[in-house]
Amino acid sequence: MIAGLFILFNFIALNRITHHLSFTILDKEPLNTKDLEKQVAAREAVKYIRDNDIVGLGTGSTAYYTIIEVAELVKNGLKIKGVPTSEHTASLATSLGIELLDMNAVEYIDVTIDGADEFDENLNLIKGGGGAHFREKIVASLTKKEIIIADAAKKVDQLGKFKVPVEIVPLALNYVVRAMAKLGGQGAVRMKDGKQFITDNHNLIVDADFGLIGDPAALSEKLNQIEGILAHGLFVNLAAMVIVGQGTEAVTYTK
Amino acid sequence: MIAGLFILFNFIALNRITHHLSFTILDKEPLNTKDLEKQVAAREAVKYIRDNDIVGLGTGSTAYYTIIEVAELVKNGLKIKGVPTSEHTASLATSLGIELLDMNAVEYIDVTIDGADEFDENLNLIKGGGGAHFREKIVASLTKKEIIIADAAKKVDQLGKFKVPVEIVPLALNYVVRAMAKLGGQGAVRMKDGKQFITDNHNLIVDADFGLIGDPAALSEKLNQIEGILAHGLFVNLAAMVIVGQGTEAVTYTK
Repeated sequence: MIAGLFILFNFIALNRITHHLSFTILDKEPLNTKDLEKQVAAREAVKYIRDNDIVGLGTGSTAYYTIIEVAELVKNGLKIKGVPTSEHTASLATSLGIELLDMNAVEYIDVTIDGADEFDENLNLIKGGGGAHFREKIVASLTKKEIIIADAAKKVDQLGKFKVPVEIVPLALNYVVRAMAKLGGQGAVRMKDGKQFITDNHNLIVDADFGLIGDPAALSEKLNQIEGILAHGLFVNLAAMVIVGQGTEAVTYTK
Repeated sequence: MIAGLFILFNFIALNRITHHLSFTILDKEPLNTKDLEKQVAAREAVKYIRDNDIVGLGTGSTAYYTIIEVAELVKNGLKIKGVPTSEHTASLATSLGIELLDMNAVEYIDVTIDGADEFDENLNLIKGGGGAHFREKIVASLTKKEIIIADAAKKVDQLGKFKVPVEIVPLALNYVVRAMAKLGGQGAVRMKDGKQFITDNHNLIVDADFGLIGDPAALSEKLNQIEGILAHGLFVNLAAMVIVGQGTEAVTYTK
């Protein structure tokens, strides 16, 4: 009975989410500071979207707020088409009425708004906490203006406190782990609910600790040379700006 | 009961296949010159296998002759364990009584014998005509002595007449095709029986024409930097020797 009511409540909440999301959340379950800051950043980021743009839609808790904001703009008449970076984002965007394009159907993407797990002052990033960094990287590579939104805690002097997620074809796992060890990286296979986490591409993730990373570009290139890595979470020279929510203000970093 | 007989029959047949295979082929369907030369090269190559070695087993028509020869040696008492480079090779090797190890279970491979679609005097290769070059490359990377066997027609002054097979994650196909075009490579998705050819890893292959390749190492590194390519068919600095059958003689190239 309680479960039934909960489902009903969720059903109503989902139907109303595009209309009343901020009210729903603010009224019933106040956002914590981090979430509020993500929301502030998302609202600033969507200002860069123009009518008829193709818009890359990120994955993860930060990107979630962006998708909500984009859906709101679409509801108010903005014509855009989205390119999702994960199955999860595709489902969410479709449920909110955002028309989607396949990545293979676009030659470029005007603006992408995505999250990051760390960024430095050169706007190099570590991404992949959500395990979607392969698609996120292709989308970023296709994108003219890659906007990263984050909360203030994601800014670091040097990347590397957050482990670098590395997506690996399962049959090459041990080879890749040893090859990364030669580059100074140690890590374990990511688990979820007691099982190995499997990506949208049927691969494994190793979260690799390289210590503080002095030269992200060099490490990125070296990792790209290791056979069996589909994509790693170092994003070098891909972001055009990072927007950080600080309290109720949005702070924008550019190079 | 019938199933039992069938299994028994297969068991006998499989036990005999290694005894009689060459007779069977020679008696009933003479090998053409190319196949004879591959067989000559395979017989030379297996001389590098030592007792208790871990042996990488290639894929394709050339590797086929090697697996036959290895099975013969095993039958005669050689103790080796094989690491297959494809599902097809795994099935063949198992059916011939070769014990197999998973690629993830080995730290290194002593000797691998595999084919190639082209090789140059520096022993750089183009591989992937069979679509198995991803696993073949991991196996080669794990291998102390990578032996390539080929017929004489595979030797070229400069690589590139044979198109470079590039294994691509489907959702990144068009991105990768455009990125390769910027490097001067043009190609189409490989088809088989009217459908897109799908690799063991659920990916597509584009056979990319880069013209004659002046600097295989440089092109290999550039292709490795393109997101969405799982593996390309340029094998640089991986082969230790190439053995070519020329008539009834084996000619060995080393660096």
